[in-house]
Amino acid sequence: MELNGVADLPEIRPGDDIAALVADRAALEPGDVLTVASTIVSKAEGRTADLEDYPVSGRAQEIADRIADLAGEEKDPRFAQAVLEESTELLIDAPFLLTETRFGHICVNAGIDRSNVPDHDLLLLPKRPAESAERIRTGLEQQGIEDVAVIVTDTCGRPFRHGQRGVALGWAGMPASRDWRGELDRDGHELGVTVQSVVDELAAAANLVTGEAAAGTPAVVVREWEFGDLEGSDELFRSVEDDLVRQALREWRVDG
Amino acid sequence: MELNGVADLPEIRPGDDIAALVADRAALEPGDVLTVASTIVSKAEGRTADLEDYPVSGRAQEIADRIADLAGEEKDPRFAQAVLEESTELLIDAPFLLTETRFGHICVNAGIDRSNVPDHDLLLLPKRPAESAERIRTGLEQQGIEDVAVIVTDTCGRPFRHGQRGVALGWAGMPASRDWRGELDRDGHELGVTVQSVVDELAAAANLVTGEAAAGTPAVVVREWEFGDLEGSDELFRSVEDDLVRQALREWRVDG
Repeated sequence: MELNGVADLPEIRPGDDIAALVADRAALEPGDVLTVASTIVSKAEGRTADLEDYPVSGRAQEIADRIADLAGEEKDPRFAQAVLEESTELLIDAPFLLTETRFGHICVNAGIDRSNVPDHDLLLLPKRPAESAERIRTGLEQQGIEDVAVIVTDTCGRPFRHGQRGVALGWAGMPASRDWRGELDRDGHELGVTVQSVVDELAAAANLVTGEAAAGTPAVVVREWEFGDLEGSDELFRSVEDDLVRQALREWRVDG
Repeated sequence: MELNGVADLPEIRPGDDIAALVADRAALEPGDVLTVASTIVSKAEGRTADLEDYPVSGRAQEIADRIADLAGEEKDPRFAQAVLEESTELLIDAPFLLTETRFGHICVNAGIDRSNVPDHDLLLLPKRPAESAERIRTGLEQQGIEDVAVIVTDTCGRPFRHGQRGVALGWAGMPASRDWRGELDRDGHELGVTVQSVVDELAAAANLVTGEAAAGTPAVVVREWEFGDLEGSDELFRSVEDDLVRQALREWRVDG
């Protein structure tokens, strides 16, 4: 398996055609996987915003006040308002905001970025990253590039383990995970591990190449990797019913 | 960045020298990262066990009974006993066991594997994976191979997202994460993302090459990847104080 960053992508602006920009700079081949950082997808989709766009509700004011108290420094309630507007559920409301975004992804501050935006205060996540991935895939086909899977990625933290790692937000042209049920190990026993989240692993791998700083390459080509002849699934984001941790956080908030 | 599985490793037996077996099959170079699945590390370290090794405590019986009730099928209380003995804290006790292992890793069933073991019932995780990684690294040096970082990996599930992905259990010759604090993005703003868990991303990337089934390659060489000139940290496993989800799970258990 080989990963290469797409060199020399320009600063992305609203309306830019990411597929065309990548196709000009990388010799994509059938079977490749293209990962694209949500940062540039959001920029191309014009998902920037300003704090003044968010008139503050009572709830946002309350949240910002509480976080400010805990942090011992002022917090802009308009930012809390932006996070609420991008979210369908608040899982943790202090000392930071952990929410479920409208497309099902759970992350801090609804993934809203306060760096990486030249002319605005905020960069929101793509509205529907699966559709973004599909659009880029279609764009590649229009450039004559067939059979390239596309993953829109982000980085985020997680419980139990420090640090952030790359994750998939949306994907097209491949399933999210592969299912090893019924496959046998070297000793002929059925495998304990059943579902492997390959889009997340590809996003994590790509993030090692992407980097974060000025020299970062937000698009990465993964070559010589095959999904293989296994069943696939597109379930990536857990619902409350499937997630004891989400259930525990709900009760904790009620009691706390 | 390039990842290649180490081909033709034999079935690993207690006392096997993984470093020598890998060095015979892969032309490792300075700067490479070698990932090794905990399965073969455990086998080399003789971390197999049998259910009859675990006389059942009252607590294990209680846990097994409750899980059996919920699952509607019998559960062997000796397995619950094995999980308890490998763990320092039980985070979730039904419908499955989520524990903190003795070396700080949080996973289901203390990572005990019931497949992948030819002559025994159970394969336990390595006792101290960081020491295992260091030992393999030293073994490589004894083969004349200098400056190769080693990561002992496993796969496990996580809250919020379906599926399993590769994670690092222990590492040597590199820090667990790199710290981007103070680095600037393309627009000159300080980065929001600060700590990138590179050992987990490397483990996830390697797991795409490893595969799970009979044809699996449990050791993978990562080439042309550089940690870079950034501060590093070896903190990977969150303590309760650093982890609101762990705190919520503690209270949930008490109330539930």
